[in-house]
Amino acid sequence: MKVHRNFSGVIAPVLTPFGEDGSPDPDRFIEHAEWLLEDGCTALAPFGTTSEANSLGLDERMELLEELVDSGVDPAKLMPGTGSCSVADAAILTQHAVDLGCGGVLMLPPFYYKNPSEEGLFRFFAEVIDDVGDDRLRVYLYHIPPVAQVGFTLPLIERLRNEFPGVVVGLKDSSGDWSNMKSILDAFPGFELFPGSELYMLEGLRNGAAGVISATANVGARALRRLYDDWRGANADSMQEEISALRRTIQSFPVVPTMKALIAHYRQDEGWAEVRPPFTPLPKAEAERAIATLADQHGFRLDFAEAA
Amino acid sequence: MKVHRNFSGVIAPVLTPFGEDGSPDPDRFIEHAEWLLEDGCTALAPFGTTSEANSLGLDERMELLEELVDSGVDPAKLMPGTGSCSVADAAILTQHAVDLGCGGVLMLPPFYYKNPSEEGLFRFFAEVIDDVGDDRLRVYLYHIPPVAQVGFTLPLIERLRNEFPGVVVGLKDSSGDWSNMKSILDAFPGFELFPGSELYMLEGLRNGAAGVISATANVGARALRRLYDDWRGANADSMQEEISALRRTIQSFPVVPTMKALIAHYRQDEGWAEVRPPFTPLPKAEAERAIATLADQHGFRLDFAEAA
Repeated sequence: MKVHRNFSGVIAPVLTPFGEDGSPDPDRFIEHAEWLLEDGCTALAPFGTTSEANSLGLDERMELLEELVDSGVDPAKLMPGTGSCSVADAAILTQHAVDLGCGGVLMLPPFYYKNPSEEGLFRFFAEVIDDVGDDRLRVYLYHIPPVAQVGFTLPLIERLRNEFPGVVVGLKDSSGDWSNMKSILDAFPGFELFPGSELYMLEGLRNGAAGVISATANVGARALRRLYDDWRGANADSMQEEISALRRTIQSFPVVPTMKALIAHYRQDEGWAEVRPPFTPLPKAEAERAIATLADQHGFRLDFAEAA
Repeated sequence: MKVHRNFSGVIAPVLTPFGEDGSPDPDRFIEHAEWLLEDGCTALAPFGTTSEANSLGLDERMELLEELVDSGVDPAKLMPGTGSCSVADAAILTQHAVDLGCGGVLMLPPFYYKNPSEEGLFRFFAEVIDDVGDDRLRVYLYHIPPVAQVGFTLPLIERLRNEFPGVVVGLKDSSGDWSNMKSILDAFPGFELFPGSELYMLEGLRNGAAGVISATANVGARALRRLYDDWRGANADSMQEEISALRRTIQSFPVVPTMKALIAHYRQDEGWAEVRPPFTPLPKAEAERAIATLADQHGFRLDFAEAA
């Protein structure tokens, strides 16, 4: 019995590299995206929290996505972030992604005003979906209350699914709260739920999750993919343990600057370490400590030559 | 002894009306802006929190500002909000406002990532100011931690003032915390501090504040202006008491939808009550209750004919 899913497996919210002038660097971006697909990602979610998407301009986001699609990456494998605090800009980004053939979009709720009503959030998504008005649109809700503060309750998810069947098809849950993920999985069979961290990957898969969308897939997709491909196997629990241990070490450092520093180190390409404010790059000594800690405790390294 | 100030007095964060198609309505917007200046505002701060600015698209904001300036409102009296989570879009909005001759801009910090470092916030503002690179630029920092979550500490304000003297010239303090306003006033004489609520207006003026930037100036600028013009007078305390009482009643309702409902009622123009998601319009019964409560308790009414 095969469940049809629009997206599944291991999805990386692609890091956004910057060039010397501070602009997003399409060459490094495309190279990284292609490497992620070789390293085990089944799909890519550019312009997530890890991608510093909200630190990019509207035009920068659209140009970078065009370059990615032009480079030959299959747009059906792309689930770009297209959320915005404004209906207008969310609709522009979403329409743009649909027009490029993207398999789905990952949408933050409007996150400026705090404690918005459920009715207000429903209307936000309804307006964006109506404005885009395109049968090809597939929306994944992006639930990340630790950052956005604003999130999705079960009744809101239910209302959006009922009102837009076949359009609102999934959710990335970065709440860090397994009981929330479990409630969604139990309430909405067939809804494509992706835990936002591999800490919940195996438990998620055992309860019907579609896969995982995780920041650290940017530097460790291969192990996540092995677990995804063999989660019913005898070694699943020990694979999950190793994966979780690595994740915990990475997140004991500032995650985005650290992953960029790791790629900069293993690619011998210092420019990769750049971030946009309000993030700051990892100081050199701290980057060296991260590289050494990960290597010592987890045998961690990135081999770009091997993958290429 | 007269202190030179770039902005001072009573400033309204102008409400943004919408047309039947849901777009910002320049005609109602301009009419309201002109009425505010007649009603006592010394200047206007379009695209604040009250203006639902973050619910507007980048292009919508720029077009509306152009229409306002084209209508003949003196741009020297305009302090539009130009903040964004991204350096790129904040620089676009800021440059646009400077090019239109706006007397200043009111800038939110990047508000997506929570607990950013002071260094990261400093770099954000430094990059925007450098990108704009225009001597005419005057930046007012927008401190509103109850909504944006991210705010400005005293050391950050000091560093920005020192690095950009004559550019970073003031701050709107919507913390609702008088002790924070007092600390800023004490630490930085000559810095143009505006409490973000008239509850702190008289106390602010007595301690060197430049005026007030308040949501409710959209429906009550006249009384604020009387206090501003006569805050050294014998009646100042009783004027403040009345002002505070009205403010407290207004903010016992959802402030933005309520003010729009008040204007819709007194202009006999239902369309004025529209808001953008995630806000929702005030239900009719609740609007009637607000109108009646304000009239009964404070003799509140808006007389547009009189002002025009």
